[in-house]
Parts: sequence; structure tokens; C-alpha cells
Amino acid sequence: MKINSSLLFSIDDLLELYVDKFKDVRFKAENIIANEPVYYFISSDGKLIRPRLLLAACNMFGGDLDVALNPAFGIQMFHNFTLVHDDIMDNSDVRRGRPTVHKKYSVNNAIISGDLMMIYAYDYLSKIDESQLREVLTNFNDTAGKIIEGQQMDIDFETRMDVREEEYIKMIGYKTSVLLAESVRIGGIIANTTDVNKELIYNFGLNLGLSFQIKDDWLDAFGTGEKFGKKIGGDILQNKKTMLFVKAWELGDEKAREKIKSLMIHEDENEKIQNMLNIYNELGINDLIEIQMTEYFQKGLSYLEKIQLPEERKIPLLDIAHKIYNRDF
Amino acid sequence: MKINSSLLFSIDDLLELYVDKFKDVRFKAENIIANEPVYYFISSDGKLIRPRLLLAACNMFGGDLDVALNPAFGIQMFHNFTLVHDDIMDNSDVRRGRPTVHKKYSVNNAIISGDLMMIYAYDYLSKIDESQLREVLTNFNDTAGKIIEGQQMDIDFETRMDVREEEYIKMIGYKTSVLLAESVRIGGIIANTTDVNKELIYNFGLNLGLSFQIKDDWLDAFGTGEKFGKKIGGDILQNKKTMLFVKAWELGDEKAREKIKSLMIHEDENEKIQNMLNIYNELGINDLIEIQMTEYFQKGLSYLEKIQLPEERKIPLLDIAHKIYNRDF
Repeated sequence: MKINSSLLFSIDDLLELYVDKFKDVRFKAENIIANEPVYYFISSDGKLIRPRLLLAACNMFGGDLDVALNPAFGIQMFHNFTLVHDDIMDNSDVRRGRPTVHKKYSVNNAIISGDLMMIYAYDYLSKIDESQLREVLTNFNDTAGKIIEGQQMDIDFETRMDVREEEYIKMIGYKTSVLLAESVRIGGIIANTTDVNKELIYNFGLNLGLSFQIKDDWLDAFGTGEKFGKKIGGDILQNKKTMLFVKAWELGDEKAREKIKSLMIHEDENEKIQNMLNIYNELGINDLIEIQMTEYFQKGLSYLEKIQLPEERKIPLLDIAHKIYNRDF
Repeated sequence: MKINSSLLFSIDDLLELYVDKFKDVRFKAENIIANEPVYYFISSDGKLIRPRLLLAACNMFGGDLDVALNPAFGIQMFHNFTLVHDDIMDNSDVRRGRPTVHKKYSVNNAIISGDLMMIYAYDYLSKIDESQLREVLTNFNDTAGKIIEGQQMDIDFETRMDVREEEYIKMIGYKTSVLLAESVRIGGIIANTTDVNKELIYNFGLNLGLSFQIKDDWLDAFGTGEKFGKKIGGDILQNKKTMLFVKAWELGDEKAREKIKSLMIHEDENEKIQNMLNIYNELGINDLIEIQMTEYFQKGLSYLEKIQLPEERKIPLLDIAHKIYNRDF
């Protein structure tokens, strides 16, 4: 398959290309027990936002999608690795509406299959032109390190009350946004775009990622479980410092803070969730979060606007951005 | 530093080069909590067998040691990552004479710092000439996958009694030997040696690795704790299927097998270890293991002999091989 680079693909077309190529993927490692959780996990491979971002960026800049498919798979495998290990650390039971890997199999299986996924990620990321290998790997290694650091910050925050908004933004920037940003940047590298464009598209992805994660925090508190695929209130039960929490702590008076503190060690799970939601509602956190998501979203779009290309070529990326913002996948 | 490629370095010189370059290494990731276990772990960085093998192979083939140092560090980081995660899975308390990472910090810290080490491994492995990047990465990704598979096989064997010797050899080949083999192969790639030589040096490392791991099994049962740095009898307590166990099961009569089976669930730890050691002694496992280690060691050397180079250039690699065989580090 050689894909004409002047053609513009919709995000559904891109998804189809991706799914077609990888639906029956089989990894080199022969061990059935080590690979089974990998296949289990990728069989419900979420919304494939990151690979679609990579492919759409590559396509926008006129790159060869046939080449971009392998690193797109690599990015998704890396994302999957982080989810499997994070779920162990967060002791989460449900992911994408199904039992997490360590619950279905064991913690050891989850550690091993996560490790394998990271190796597969590097394997597929490396299946690109030799001339682009160093640039992609150097960028990606940086990003990968930040993602792990972000997870560490997220854990560290669990035992703190006074996480400042800027610390929170740095944490989600690392934990979530840089991989979205890296996805579109790799798309740009494969398409041999300019350094200026790589920078612009990276910042588009970064801000889109911030708006995405803040919405994720919101959904964990106010979403509906069926669509979200995770347990509602999970962040509250774990004393996660979400944007909602950070704002509530910042805006709450002495009484509200005392109430929040007491909820940290409240034993009845349903009461804990409900009381925390009440505090969020009383402080009007909902509206504040909405404003913030919109600001990051608009900032992301402003970087995309600055890219010197016919507006029509930006349509698929804009389409993904709006779908992410409206959680319309 | 540009190192003259015709000079031959002793393995102590190579160690000095390595330690000089990396003694104050600081990683890009800024998070102190995520990196602290990494620094803790590499501050007692064992015998550095793999980096020395990589450097000695590169030096033997006349390659630039200055270039080889970074991938040598990458190989060591990958090895460290596997140890940190394996120690979680095996629930080991002691490594290199000190508390394991998950005991000193926490399981979450050990998962995260292991993940970080893998990323650092890829980062340093990639710091080579662009023309060699694909070959090194392709080989390394294959090897990395096998190492994870080997760990999975090791775990799977814990609940089985009837592990055949060939299965055991495959397991330790994957879990241990391929990384030694990959170390010397990467040394060869960096030195731009021939494909034939790369194959020969790989097989040298592979067989050396088998003899090394069988000795490791032996030391776990019969070594002295101080030099070994691990708890004696740890494999026995965990029902690990070591070469000693595999041989004992193969050679034991019905009565011996019943005894072994009952020991699997024996609760008194000291009795369990002592009784298992008695069985090994009664069956003469010691001598059998000695023969086998020697066979693999000699086979390894035979590959090194076939490499068309002046014998003097092979001295440092032979030196490491003998030190490994005699556990003389």
C-alpha cells in the first residue's frame, strides 16, 4: 500500500487504515502467557486518539501514511503500557468498561505485559526512515521520561492538600498532554515539515491535551459511567488532586477546607463521593472548569491556525480537536 | 575524549573509563522522587559485566570506545530495570547486599523507577552513529522482548514440577544470556565488524551467559551470602525451577520426588532450604552442574576462537569470560 500524500483523509478513514493494518497484529514474542494480557488490552483499544492525531498531522503536512502507521501503533502501545502500570499503582478495577489487567490476571502479569508493551512501542516507533530515526527517538525518549514523571507527581499529590494550580498543570502536562503533542509532532517529522511547523503542531497538541485531561477530571466526577468506562468518583475515593479538587481547595473557606480534609479519611465510599460533589457544586467548580477547558482548547487551535497551509488541510485535525473537546467519540 | 582504536584496554581499564564517565550521571527527568530509586540502585551497580563485555568486544574489533560508552550504559540500565521489576515479582528483599527498591521505597516507586530505567536505557542506546541506529535497535528490541518472556517463563515454572532441561535452558537463555550476547554484538556493530563476526561474538556471549546463569543457580544454593549479595536459598523458598531443581527432579526416584513435592509447601523456611540441599547432595547435583557449566563455557570460547583476529586482541574478552566462570569479580 502506497498512499497518495496529496489526498486528505477523514479521521474515520484514518481509523479504518489503522484498524485494517493492526486488527490481526501478532507480536514476535512467542510466550502466550506474557502476550495474552497485551492482546486482551488492545482488543478494547479505546478511542485511538493518539494514533489518529499522528496520522492526521502526517496527512495534513502531506506525509506518507503508510510509513506513519507503524509509529502510530507504537504511540498507542506506549499509551497502553502507561495505563496498565498506572492501573496497578492506582489499584483501579475497571478500564474501558472491563476489568483492569492486574485484576483479570495478576499484578505480575500486569507488570510484565506493561513492560512488553513498552518494548513493542519502541519497536514500532523505530519502523521509520533511517534519516528520521534519531529525531523521533530523541524527542520520544524525552516525552516518555516526562510521562513517567507525571505519573510520579500524580501519586505524590495524593498525600498533599495544597497542590497549586500551576503544579497541577505541570503534572497533567507531563502525564497526559506531552504524548498527544508528541503524536502530532512525529506525524510532522515523518512528513518532513519545517521545524517551525513541528513546534506549532506540538503546542497545538499540548494545549489540546490540557483541555482533554481537565475534561477527564470533570468526567470522573460528573460523567456517566457507561460512556466513560471508568468508575465514577474514582479520583475522589483515591484523594486524587484533580483540577476540581485544586480549585475547590483554592476557593474554599476555612470551613470548606476542614470538610474536605475530613473527607480524605471518610470511610463510607458513597458518602465520600457525594459530599465531595456537593462541595464542588456549592463552589461553582463546574463553571470554572468549563471556562478553563475552553481557554486551553482555544489556545491549542491558535497554534494550528498559525501553520501556513490551506485551511482545508487542517479539517481532520480540527475535527479530532472538536471531538476531544466535546468528548464526542 | 577520542580513544585510539588500535590500543587494547584491560577490563579494569574499561571499567575505569565507564565509571569515570558515568559516576556523576544525572538524568534529564527532574522529578526527585522518581529518580531517587534509580540513583540508589545504580550506586551499587554490581559487577558491570554487560557494559564491560560491550566495551571489550568493541575494543577487540578496533571500534571507538568513546562511542561505545553510551550504549554500554544503556545496556546496564536495561539490566537494572529488569532487576528492579523482577525483584517486585519475586518479592525479593535483598539485592547486591542492600534492600531491594520496592522494600526500601514502595512497589509503586519500584514500578515507576524501573519504567524510567527502561526509557533511559533506550535513550543511551540511541546515542550512536545514525548509520548504526536501526541495526542496534532492531536487534535490541528483539532481545528485550525475549528477556521479558524469559521472566514470564521463570514465573510460570514456579507452579510446575516437571520442567524439562531444554525448557529451562530456553528460559535462562532468554532471561539472562541474550543480554550478554547482545552486549558483545552491539560492541561489534559499533566497531563495524562483519556479519560473520557479529554472529560469532553473539554466540560467544550466549553460551557464556548460560554458564553464568547455571552458576548463579548454584550460588543461590551453595554460595556464601556475603559475596553473592543475595539471600542464600532464595530460589528454594520460592520454588524456582533452577538447573539444580530440574536435574534433581529428573534424577530423583519416586521417593525423592515425593519428598521434593512435600517441600514445595513446607512452611519452616530453614528446614525447607536444608532438606532441599540434602536432596541435591544425595543426588550428586553439584558435580553434574559443574560439568554443564564447563561445557557451555567451552562452547562459548570456541566461538571466540573462530573470530579471525590476532589472539592478543581477544585477551580482555577471555579475561572477562574466565572471571565470570570462576565468579572472580
